[in-house]
Amino acid sequence: MGAHSSLTCGMHGANGGMAMEKGQPAEGGVFVGYEDAKGVVHSFPFHGLSSTERERYVSGASMEAAGGNVVKERLIPSRSISRDYRWATDTFSAEGLTCEMVTPFFPLPDPDNSSAAEQRFACCPTLLVKVSFDNTKSAVARRFFFGLSAGDTRWACHATGKASMLTTRDSMGMATLDEVETVIDFTIESAMHRNHATPDFLLGKVAGFVASVPPRSQKSILVAVGFFKEGNATYGRKTRYWYNRYFKDLPDVLRYALKNADRYIAEAHARDLELDQATLSDDQKFLIAHSTRSYWGSTEWLEENGKPRWVVNEGEYLMMNTFDLTVDMLFFEMRFNPWTVRNVLEQFVRDYSYHDRVFDPAKPGKSYPGGISFTHDMGVMNQFSPPERSSYETAGLDRECFSYMTCEQLTNWVCCAGVYYTRTEDRDFLRRQRKVLEACLESLQIRDNPDPRKRTGIMKFESSRTQGGGEITTYDSLDHSLGQARNNIYLASKCWAAYVALDHLFGILGLAERQHAARSSAELCARSIVDGFDEARGFIPAVLEPGNASAIIPAIEGLIFPHEMGLAQVVSPSGPYAKLIHTLRQHLENVLKPGICLYPDGGWKLSSTADNSWMSKIALCQHVARTILKIHNAKRDAKADAAHVRWQIKGSEFHACSDQFRSGVALGSKYYPRIVTTILWMDKKPS
Amino acid sequence: MGAHSSLTCGMHGANGGMAMEKGQPAEGGVFVGYEDAKGVVHSFPFHGLSSTERERYVSGASMEAAGGNVVKERLIPSRSISRDYRWATDTFSAEGLTCEMVTPFFPLPDPDNSSAAEQRFACCPTLLVKVSFDNTKSAVARRFFFGLSAGDTRWACHATGKASMLTTRDSMGMATLDEVETVIDFTIESAMHRNHATPDFLLGKVAGFVASVPPRSQKSILVAVGFFKEGNATYGRKTRYWYNRYFKDLPDVLRYALKNADRYIAEAHARDLELDQATLSDDQKFLIAHSTRSYWGSTEWLEENGKPRWVVNEGEYLMMNTFDLTVDMLFFEMRFNPWTVRNVLEQFVRDYSYHDRVFDPAKPGKSYPGGISFTHDMGVMNQFSPPERSSYETAGLDRECFSYMTCEQLTNWVCCAGVYYTRTEDRDFLRRQRKVLEACLESLQIRDNPDPRKRTGIMKFESSRTQGGGEITTYDSLDHSLGQARNNIYLASKCWAAYVALDHLFGILGLAERQHAARSSAELCARSIVDGFDEARGFIPAVLEPGNASAIIPAIEGLIFPHEMGLAQVVSPSGPYAKLIHTLRQHLENVLKPGICLYPDGGWKLSSTADNSWMSKIALCQHVARTILKIHNAKRDAKADAAHVRWQIKGSEFHACSDQFRSGVALGSKYYPRIVTTILWMDKKPS
Repeated sequence: MGAHSSLTCGMHGANGGMAMEKGQPAEGGVFVGYEDAKGVVHSFPFHGLSSTERERYVSGASMEAAGGNVVKERLIPSRSISRDYRWATDTFSAEGLTCEMVTPFFPLPDPDNSSAAEQRFACCPTLLVKVSFDNTKSAVARRFFFGLSAGDTRWACHATGKASMLTTRDSMGMATLDEVETVIDFTIESAMHRNHATPDFLLGKVAGFVASVPPRSQKSILVAVGFFKEGNATYGRKTRYWYNRYFKDLPDVLRYALKNADRYIAEAHARDLELDQATLSDDQKFLIAHSTRSYWGSTEWLEENGKPRWVVNEGEYLMMNTFDLTVDMLFFEMRFNPWTVRNVLEQFVRDYSYHDRVFDPAKPGKSYPGGISFTHDMGVMNQFSPPERSSYETAGLDRECFSYMTCEQLTNWVCCAGVYYTRTEDRDFLRRQRKVLEACLESLQIRDNPDPRKRTGIMKFESSRTQGGGEITTYDSLDHSLGQARNNIYLASKCWAAYVALDHLFGILGLAERQHAARSSAELCARSIVDGFDEARGFIPAVLEPGNASAIIPAIEGLIFPHEMGLAQVVSPSGPYAKLIHTLRQHLENVLKPGICLYPDGGWKLSSTADNSWMSKIALCQHVARTILKIHNAKRDAKADAAHVRWQIKGSEFHACSDQFRSGVALGSKYYPRIVTTILWMDKKPS
Repeated sequence: MGAHSSLTCGMHGANGGMAMEKGQPAEGGVFVGYEDAKGVVHSFPFHGLSSTERERYVSGASMEAAGGNVVKERLIPSRSISRDYRWATDTFSAEGLTCEMVTPFFPLPDPDNSSAAEQRFACCPTLLVKVSFDNTKSAVARRFFFGLSAGDTRWACHATGKASMLTTRDSMGMATLDEVETVIDFTIESAMHRNHATPDFLLGKVAGFVASVPPRSQKSILVAVGFFKEGNATYGRKTRYWYNRYFKDLPDVLRYALKNADRYIAEAHARDLELDQATLSDDQKFLIAHSTRSYWGSTEWLEENGKPRWVVNEGEYLMMNTFDLTVDMLFFEMRFNPWTVRNVLEQFVRDYSYHDRVFDPAKPGKSYPGGISFTHDMGVMNQFSPPERSSYETAGLDRECFSYMTCEQLTNWVCCAGVYYTRTEDRDFLRRQRKVLEACLESLQIRDNPDPRKRTGIMKFESSRTQGGGEITTYDSLDHSLGQARNNIYLASKCWAAYVALDHLFGILGLAERQHAARSSAELCARSIVDGFDEARGFIPAVLEPGNASAIIPAIEGLIFPHEMGLAQVVSPSGPYAKLIHTLRQHLENVLKPGICLYPDGGWKLSSTADNSWMSKIALCQHVARTILKIHNAKRDAKADAAHVRWQIKGSEFHACSDQFRSGVALGSKYYPRIVTTILWMDKKPS
């Protein structure tokens, strides 16, 4: 957690293994296998195969040596391998061999009020692997192994007390306290069948531990896998990984991990049990487990001048704290470590907020004082962008990818702050950010219309940062149905949620006038959305402008925020926004149909006019549909979940958990953290 | 120099650009071009093209936009580009555009007796690029540019005083004091024809400077390109780059480079002139210039505990201070900075020497006390190997790749020490290493035969480190003609050179008995080589064992050391080793023929029985042939040089300067430092 590191494996014949700060599967591999009584080495197919090898392997054709050579190596066939993929463990079994990958996670302690011991345990950049081999049926001793390669790097052995240790570049490595032979060679097979006599051949790119299990018995080895980046971690701002406070180097990490292995494993098993006991389908549990790994692998718990700085990297894109991801990962972080939400919100205020002017796109020549907003992100690839700037946003574009997301990021800050406060009751935060909240209200209203008499509650004015262009939303790669910001009902639903949140927060702060203003805008916004309903079509067109006939699911997104703030009345069909709730329910019921917003496989299609559906947003909207709008259709829901699982395990086979899919195939936002909106499903039992 | 960094370009359509510690061309590109009056951007083809693009480009087919699109970009065609490749500058010109890459080099000051200012100037990790555009014939202002990409990394702009500066990951970057627009974008063309309004689009992977030249005039911009690695540089031992003593960060490097640009350019031009004035053919000058760049790009000037540690990396293999390369690069280092030779020799003594036992391969069960020797290398990929161990050598192999090179590395230490002392007269070194020299003599003699009565001067006993196997030579990938150590006449010639060196050094040290012993072994060795001459075949077979009939050129290699030590009598046809000189002359004259040791193209073939010829060794042996053996054949020599140039520029087109060629095509040891044996040609005018 917070080490921006990963160990990826599972796809047969694909490269993977350990990586740091990469945003995609590593270039190495994972080597787990055993030797049979004839000396043949059998291993899981968790490393790169050439395309012909892979074809033969996947097609089930023999991978055994051709051309009359003696068979010395064999890949365990797919059909023999079973996998048990739980929330914090992932276990592969075949032919008496078992490999359990343990990736413990749990709430990260708030650095402001936790002990050094708690923080050390939480930030230790490690995971554990337990490899077992059952030799009970054999009359001879056998060997089994666990090994890793990390792309092109080489390895060193460390004799360090009782542990056997292998590291590469002082930054990645593994250790065990069990009795093993430590090997480095070109491949594990070449180490097992060495033609030379040097166990640690230092030119080898593969390193591992080989254990021997006596006849008629079974044996396990426990391996800690660890990561370590010393010194400066980022550019533009000098930071280091938080774990540098508690660990001096990689051997220190590995020794600690082995010493505390029982506690880590207990945490992992507790998470496994939690998910296991949730009243969810296996497909839903899979999606939660899959997205959770992808999230943690993208996280960076940094220290800057002695203070924590929380960064989540944007999967393959490696943008830092992309705000339109933060707002979706909010629910996951609120469950585990709300302090990271506060930390990111305050980073945005301090370093990545700005003030602009606004203009009416019909009369771009005239501008008006704008207001506060926040950047799209804080940099890319560990390069912090300069203050008040994102790496993503560029000027002069009219509703195209890389334009500004000024209004949406503004709603994101408010919605995050609303959820953060109501779930933590952190009064200090609220007091500290009072002026920001006031500025946010003003800014939201100005983006509706600088002239109060002409307001409709939805965004119609563009930021001067676009230099005469037009803002976009987080759905940057979709058509205008979701990509255009102004008059968009997706953004309108988030503006409404932001006004509702401000209404609530100003109430708590005792700012009656502000509260009234926020509520007025919320009501205006709700009315505009309701009024947008097109009776003939049976839904609200995506953009409230003439000629738009797209149907979009995310019109309902905004409902999640008052719900998560515990404002049950606000989202009640009999509450103050009953009409909005009723209209959105009708909208969704009518669009959630094959040919509109359902794919032929039953998967959800966010927009009727764009073949680019985002898993994170689907999961969020599924939750809104079921929990707030009370739309249930067991068969339709199960079919959708099954489709989404297929999208991930087939459509994103290599890139693990991905967000953007075109007809079920990952096309972008791969190896992505955002899909943890699935955590919403854990909150309540489906009714 | 000493920064293990490179900027590679020149091959059309290939990736390249800046790299650190890579051992091969970088994954980015170099972007140099201009805009014509119609706004079309023309650029040199110094970045990756897809294979189809490349085919079209190389075949001369139009690279202009197909399908009726408006042409906005064009690659300057090969036929228009001229290149002037000198010792320290490399200038490309076409269509009024000129790009001069300035890579200054000069003697590195000895840290023990030079000023901080001298060291700062020498270790500054920078090179300079001057880009000019001639717009004198145009009536409109035009733009031209210089840009770089560094693979997948992103860029940051720095406003720093008068310089415009662009950096990536705080480790690579460029700066100029000239008036330019600083751009970051997906490509330079997209920056020149931006559809947005943000000059520094921080997601862009290409960064550069765009200058404007008024009508009827010309203009140049001078760009400093710099590298910087902060903190720890290596693993296994903690070191940092020497330049960290004098520069605090990359902007500091770039500012200094620009401030001192005139001095750097003057140094580069002085080297250019030096090579230009040498009485050598253009082909020879090219090979010297090409190998020089490859050498410097592999060097690391490190600091460990306040002391310098010199490392040369083994090209694509990245092994550190591979001793059988050190001994070949000796001549280059002796010309420029002899202290690096001393530094490496003393690293070997301190950290990478060992003592073994020896055995007779006919009776491997019985071993005898051996002696001192040195490891093959000191590690790989910046991972220092443990003391007394190389990364390369493994036990239990019988004369195969990755076996031990115990005897050869022993000769290497002695030969390097001999040349170092005689050229520097560094008495302190000689006194400090007296005991090592004594141990080397003893060790050499024992590897001949532990029983003094049975000695022949050549190596016949194997190191116990091979665990019953057999030693190899630096020619590890060749057949036994050069690969087997024992009874090999290549190694014998180096043993002879080592004995001769010891004879000389013990004379200076006044150790008469040792001197006598060394001389006896030298004479024995010379006699064995002479006696090996096969009158029927007309040459000495490579291995002095029954049945061997390979003819090898490197039998003459050892002659270089006494020659470089100034021992003119030793290598004189009328001196004490007249018979040896005479025999080797006859040997070479007879093997240097098509079908034996000449390829059909006239290139040299090191062994008659192996198609794997090494440029570094060819250059060395050419020098021995011409200067010591006085074998001249102007037509044959010119044909050979022309072939070797073709090997490099066609056979190693992508990997720049390489060492191992199979029939003129680079097959290994690519992007390699060792080829600077060409420096020997600079010593004297050919007679």
